[in-house]
Amino acid sequence: MPKKSKEGITFKKEENFSEWYSEVVQKAELADLRYDVKGFLVFQPWAVLSMEKMFYYLEKVLQEKGHNPYWFPTLIPEKNLKKESSHIGGFTPEVFWVTSHGKDEPIEEKLALRPTSETGFYHMFSYWIRSYKDLPFKTYQRANVFRYETKATRPFLRSREFQWIEAHCAHESEEKAMLQVREDMKTTKEVLHDIFGLPFIFFERPSWDKFPGALRTFAADVLNPDGKVVQQPSTHLLKQEFAKAFDVKFKDKDGTDKYAFITCYGPAVSRIFASVVIVHGDDKGLKFPWEIAPVQVVIVPIDTENEKIKKTAKNLKEQIEKFASIKIDDSEKRPGEKFNYWEMKGVPIRIDIGEKDLKNKKLTLFRRDLDKKIVVNESKVLNEIKKIAEETTENLRKKADKLFNNRIRDAKNISEIKKVINDGGIARISFCSVEKQGEKCAEAIEKQANAQVRGTRFEEKSEVSEKCIVCGTKANHVVYIARAY
Amino acid sequence: MPKKSKEGITFKKEENFSEWYSEVVQKAELADLRYDVKGFLVFQPWAVLSMEKMFYYLEKVLQEKGHNPYWFPTLIPEKNLKKESSHIGGFTPEVFWVTSHGKDEPIEEKLALRPTSETGFYHMFSYWIRSYKDLPFKTYQRANVFRYETKATRPFLRSREFQWIEAHCAHESEEKAMLQVREDMKTTKEVLHDIFGLPFIFFERPSWDKFPGALRTFAADVLNPDGKVVQQPSTHLLKQEFAKAFDVKFKDKDGTDKYAFITCYGPAVSRIFASVVIVHGDDKGLKFPWEIAPVQVVIVPIDTENEKIKKTAKNLKEQIEKFASIKIDDSEKRPGEKFNYWEMKGVPIRIDIGEKDLKNKKLTLFRRDLDKKIVVNESKVLNEIKKIAEETTENLRKKADKLFNNRIRDAKNISEIKKVINDGGIARISFCSVEKQGEKCAEAIEKQANAQVRGTRFEEKSEVSEKCIVCGTKANHVVYIARAY
Repeated sequence: MPKKSKEGITFKKEENFSEWYSEVVQKAELADLRYDVKGFLVFQPWAVLSMEKMFYYLEKVLQEKGHNPYWFPTLIPEKNLKKESSHIGGFTPEVFWVTSHGKDEPIEEKLALRPTSETGFYHMFSYWIRSYKDLPFKTYQRANVFRYETKATRPFLRSREFQWIEAHCAHESEEKAMLQVREDMKTTKEVLHDIFGLPFIFFERPSWDKFPGALRTFAADVLNPDGKVVQQPSTHLLKQEFAKAFDVKFKDKDGTDKYAFITCYGPAVSRIFASVVIVHGDDKGLKFPWEIAPVQVVIVPIDTENEKIKKTAKNLKEQIEKFASIKIDDSEKRPGEKFNYWEMKGVPIRIDIGEKDLKNKKLTLFRRDLDKKIVVNESKVLNEIKKIAEETTENLRKKADKLFNNRIRDAKNISEIKKVINDGGIARISFCSVEKQGEKCAEAIEKQANAQVRGTRFEEKSEVSEKCIVCGTKANHVVYIARAY
Repeated sequence: MPKKSKEGITFKKEENFSEWYSEVVQKAELADLRYDVKGFLVFQPWAVLSMEKMFYYLEKVLQEKGHNPYWFPTLIPEKNLKKESSHIGGFTPEVFWVTSHGKDEPIEEKLALRPTSETGFYHMFSYWIRSYKDLPFKTYQRANVFRYETKATRPFLRSREFQWIEAHCAHESEEKAMLQVREDMKTTKEVLHDIFGLPFIFFERPSWDKFPGALRTFAADVLNPDGKVVQQPSTHLLKQEFAKAFDVKFKDKDGTDKYAFITCYGPAVSRIFASVVIVHGDDKGLKFPWEIAPVQVVIVPIDTENEKIKKTAKNLKEQIEKFASIKIDDSEKRPGEKFNYWEMKGVPIRIDIGEKDLKNKKLTLFRRDLDKKIVVNESKVLNEIKKIAEETTENLRKKADKLFNNRIRDAKNISEIKKVINDGGIARISFCSVEKQGEKCAEAIEKQANAQVRGTRFEEKSEVSEKCIVCGTKANHVVYIARAY
């Protein structure tokens, strides 16, 4: 049946990951790449509905932890962007510039499309923060940001415009700023792991791989089936140069003026969505965790003309929509096509209503988390749906955690690193230094194993064996090696 | 007490509307104008929290009516923007252009920051729409848009970047497109009037005041205390030139290819927020309708050190947060300062907890809709709050409706128009024509009364007296005259 296979997903996730991903993005209608500006795309409803739910959970947790929401202008004046030299050094190559308006008339000053908004927020922090009583000053915004990427773009993973949340906070001391960094990591766990079901490790990046302007950078790495890691939220303790450049200071309890310690945290919702697609999906297509499924339950009437079936579908919908998002598929397609379609779309629960089942007061449920059909009594269907709703995310998360943990392996030398990496894993090694002097060893690994030092695991209590497996000098850290995009 | 008056609102809304508005925006911390790019500002938490709720209600209704959410790129290539000549004619002067990246390297093509997204959506419609079965094709996006305004900018009312929803739909016939226009007007009523409490009239704009590229334009006018109207959502039936320019066609039932009829609808959330501030506010500051209040209930403990009061506050908060957003103000300010502050901020309900009240098992509630204090038994406080929650929006809406309706007056000649307008009202007159031939009479009114023909009221069944009150020829319409910004 060539037609059928054309409609569904044809590539295998484990064998042809890259093609599988492209096919899922296209066939599940997540993004359309035919918008005719290089590196930009249109996010389609099935993705937007899920990403809106992701924003909801992220913003809810941030607000509960005392962050206040702002909307900053998209445009940042060049003079502000240039105030902190290491920051602008890192971002200048990626900036889009607005230079004119109307009929090519020059604007008052050159304006950047924000690649990130430190230089917007901290300019305003200097007005808003006066005293130690104003601290911690915790903010965030939901925003679209722009980066003139020169690497190949991939839908949701890397494009020239993407959707994110950026949280910016000012603190009175470095210790308090580090508590914020910990809080950001906890937030990431509570939302990305516990609700979206994504396993990751938070690494402190080595000194040569920090955010432009950061003193310390922490970033969560998620692992793809092709063995490459995707960087998810990162949180940074910025150098005080930022506070100095933007004059963010406060009068302390002792009456002296001090510069604030600033942290920033950036969960990129469109990229997190990519990881949800990739980590939970299978050869049939998407699998959504319950909380962020665009539609949670779909009803497929086996015969769309049968009045009794139609009535049952309508009644069920009315009861279910009180606690879940639900849709009846009364399109002209054949039932089999509908089954395949909604499985590909990753809807957690499908209810099939057929005449024979109805006679026996039964309904057939298909749960996508376990790819399992169950027949339940009509009277028990609501309870069963509520039960599946509670289990779906946990099932997906547990499966993902297991897979992830199995792919982290110790390596004792570079050829073992190569083996772990080529098996699609993350290698754990003893390493000399994550400061400048360790960069040579990192380069050796990069050259020989085509993989990078992702950093040290935050607060990992582990035995460091005596020697760096690359240079043989004293090892100070356990670091993790992985291949990135 | 000079200090007190400095902290609160000092201008009178009816006497010094413009200063009152600026003061409320600043003192209630709605927007900060000190962001250093001309015409751009920072939206602050108290406004963002309310505007997020506005997005929620608008998006909910749009989705229920079958619109699907998209996120389009912010950038539109010049070649697409230029495809429909009357549209680009209208928008070119207002476009910001992105022309370079990095170190002043030119980008592949000139890109516009979207002033509105017709030319983005319809380019994609040509891929997505194939057959009459795909119609109606109903979309929307939540987006920020950019216009290089040369008029004076005012926070929320007019700035160079603002937040809105734009809904774009394709239909198979002009009649079906007009049904969409009606639906858009109904949506506006259901959300802006019924939930946000804003009175308005939907006018069909005269031919000389249509959206660039529209066949028919309908727009809702809200009235400010200074007698000037603010244009709120507009909905447009576009000329088929748009569908032709972007090749949006479908195979009809009869097998022939036809161009679609396109409508677009644009509620600007930041501007709607301005109307909420202006219409409901009073000399003490803001008054929020319940549904869109950033915080719905605030508890003011009269003595923040008293353990019994603290415990009562905490218990109350736990019960109330199940159905309302709530905050305890345990800051160091005096109770009187707190009362004034939260009244200025427009929180619908304040609960004062004092020792004396507690002894009598009583609590004092202040309801901002009626500016009234009531003392209730502790055991009845939850029910009382739920009752006020149900009444608040209706009370604000009824008051606003009454004021609005009282300011619409008939006028029989230009000097009567002047009188109505100078009294801060909208004049209702008999008028010759809203087509080209009426424009001269409109200009005469503009010149003599400094006010504009806003259009005909959609489907108004009214007696048209025999003659146009300006030129004396046969009157064909009842039109409304008002002063706009």
